[in-house]
Amino acid sequence: MLKGDVIRNKIVDTADALFYQQGYAQTSFSDISDALGMSKGNFYYYFKSKDDILNAVIEKRSEAIRQDLLKWDELVSNPRDRLKKYILMLTTSDEQVKKYGCPVGSICTELSKLHHENLNNATELFEVYRLWLEQQFKLLGYKKESRQLSLHMLSRGQGIALITSTYSDKSFLKNEAAELNKWIDTL
Amino acid sequence: MLKGDVIRNKIVDTADALFYQQGYAQTSFSDISDALGMSKGNFYYYFKSKDDILNAVIEKRSEAIRQDLLKWDELVSNPRDRLKKYILMLTTSDEQVKKYGCPVGSICTELSKLHHENLNNATELFEVYRLWLEQQFKLLGYKKESRQLSLHMLSRGQGIALITSTYSDKSFLKNEAAELNKWIDTL
Repeated sequence: MLKGDVIRNKIVDTADALFYQQGYAQTSFSDISDALGMSKGNFYYYFKSKDDILNAVIEKRSEAIRQDLLKWDELVSNPRDRLKKYILMLTTSDEQVKKYGCPVGSICTELSKLHHENLNNATELFEVYRLWLEQQFKLLGYKKESRQLSLHMLSRGQGIALITSTYSDKSFLKNEAAELNKWIDTL
Repeated sequence: MLKGDVIRNKIVDTADALFYQQGYAQTSFSDISDALGMSKGNFYYYFKSKDDILNAVIEKRSEAIRQDLLKWDELVSNPRDRLKKYILMLTTSDEQVKKYGCPVGSICTELSKLHHENLNNATELFEVYRLWLEQQFKLLGYKKESRQLSLHMLSRGQGIALITSTYSDKSFLKNEAAELNKWIDTL
């Protein structure tokens, strides 16, 4: 990888973490450059605005989600078990979820209030998961209902993440994940 | 009501709407006074800081929720129907939910990222609903599980609100509300 790309990736990773941990509106251009110990001049060479960085963060997340899902498809053949993999993602990141909620849900909540032009891109992150979830329901034999079921899964995950972070309660997450797994077995 | 109280209430109502519609961090002190056409001097007489206003907004919301729940208790005697009243709240405010999500959930998401000292107060808004929900499950004969069930109800509502606003999809909300009502009938 070229040195410029390495630096660019570092900026995106740092911004990604800061947006998740303290919110997009609350993270300034300087917060990001300060966290990296970079001069403003050097920083501007890579990104002209916070929106540019946001776009790059969303793009990076989207690519990471796609890679994860491809990996899951390779590792797990049964669609029921794939749906459980989705739930496992919540339980394995319970510490993060407890602290900051869902990275996708919280950025979408924030951008929607800001009427931010990048909201559609952020929503695309949900859509990557949703299409994959819909595919699993189709493989289980569901037809038209697959869309509603995929939104239901997203919705369950979002509700669980929000309550877990609001109440700082990892045991709630664990219980709900177990309930969801039981539900998947009935499909 | 004294004239001062009327003005104070007006400020709180306006701030409440702005925090909900555009987020707390994005709403400035001036946004609120401008929306009311008030001079800064007059405004400062009532509130010294945005945090003061946030406290008053949370207090007002908390009181409004308590009043609503008392009304529901009076109007509806069957705990199952009371739980359905909770769900009805979502469906009757579907237009608001589609635009801005849940007023309680979105402020909690935001304050938790800001590590805001008022987060605990905002969480109290959830707690008012949760305790009431827990009570209904107890009336239905549940014991220890009542707490988990009450969190489950909150979580379902939050997930539905977030997906409805992210996808601007009121039909999703309608379908999920119907599913929740069916679930309540099985309790």
